[in-house]
Amino acid sequence: MLTKKIPETSIRRLSLYFRQLTNLEKGGIISISSSGLSQCLGFSDAQIRRDLSYFGQFGRSGIGYRVSELKKSIAGILGLDNKIWNVALVGAGHLGSALLAYRGFKEQGFFIKIAFDLSPHKIGRSFKGVKIEGLNKIPSLIKQKKITIGIIAVPAEDAQEVAYLLAKSGIRGILNFAPVRINVPPKVIVRNVDLSMELENISYFLVKKRK
Amino acid sequence: MLTKKIPETSIRRLSLYFRQLTNLEKGGIISISSSGLSQCLGFSDAQIRRDLSYFGQFGRSGIGYRVSELKKSIAGILGLDNKIWNVALVGAGHLGSALLAYRGFKEQGFFIKIAFDLSPHKIGRSFKGVKIEGLNKIPSLIKQKKITIGIIAVPAEDAQEVAYLLAKSGIRGILNFAPVRINVPPKVIVRNVDLSMELENISYFLVKKRK
Repeated sequence: MLTKKIPETSIRRLSLYFRQLTNLEKGGIISISSSGLSQCLGFSDAQIRRDLSYFGQFGRSGIGYRVSELKKSIAGILGLDNKIWNVALVGAGHLGSALLAYRGFKEQGFFIKIAFDLSPHKIGRSFKGVKIEGLNKIPSLIKQKKITIGIIAVPAEDAQEVAYLLAKSGIRGILNFAPVRINVPPKVIVRNVDLSMELENISYFLVKKRK
Repeated sequence: MLTKKIPETSIRRLSLYFRQLTNLEKGGIISISSSGLSQCLGFSDAQIRRDLSYFGQFGRSGIGYRVSELKKSIAGILGLDNKIWNVALVGAGHLGSALLAYRGFKEQGFFIKIAFDLSPHKIGRSFKGVKIEGLNKIPSLIKQKKITIGIIAVPAEDAQEVAYLLAKSGIRGILNFAPVRINVPPKVIVRNVDLSMELENISYFLVKKRK
């Protein structure tokens, strides 16, 4: 089989399609054309068709897409179909607390089951129903609670050590909020969230417009 | 002049190049080849050359890139050259507090000058040296403090109203953390940060690997 490399941006747009289809389904919409989806999302219909073509055959000409069918297919591709992902949070500071309070994770099936922090003031307490434990408990609790994804929300200088500990404990994916590159074994998937990068993307366009 | 459409991903990678070059400069590295950069960053050198080619002619064959020169050029493209961007934060909850405490913004020239919140308990107080004001002060203070970028960190149900208020007050770019699409006049640049999307990108790859 010929395996085309799927652009990272197409994978990311799948999440946007999934959200839009969820809303359409809630609104009672049965089917939608690619140009209808295009109007909802602000991408061209050619773009939408191309993105979806990487993942299979969807929709029929003249009818368009069955909303619930396409939504279900995309959920499967993204690993969100009736699946619960157990997540561990490391770092219960301001950002960690914001992530614990963030409702969007649960809605998509990502459940923070446990949090870890260095501070003796936080260890043993709970926040938003999630128990905070010491970093030394990472290896045992990751296994016990069948955690597959770890979120790193510690200061930059501690991120590498935490990443190493998570990877060693069997974590398969890491979402890293620390503003530093972390090294992990190649089998572990890492995504970095760099909040200033988003601002730079805005400033890029603001400067460009002024010229 | 022929204007090629620059891929969004190339613009985002500029930020990564900028960070890497900053580190190399700090480490006393004078010049680097595209394959050297490739090894630092994990992108192919062809990718790096193609990305940079969208923005101009950089580097010389046999010599590579002058680190400080390329860094300066990219800073200019991203609007980070000796420029200070005045930023306003709306929503001083958990996420807002995390953003106020986030050191990465200042390092790249983004300064949160003022914060706004609905809660009477927060209005009038300061956090991390930033004063928190009521939402009714948005129009006057945005102008007075010459704010160009707004960050929305309010609940989804309030995001559209805040976006409207910010746009009306002359904001030119919005970074939106609320898990909802906001509508603004086309001249305002909006970037949405959807934290579950990053987790979905991880789950996509975890599911794919298992197959």
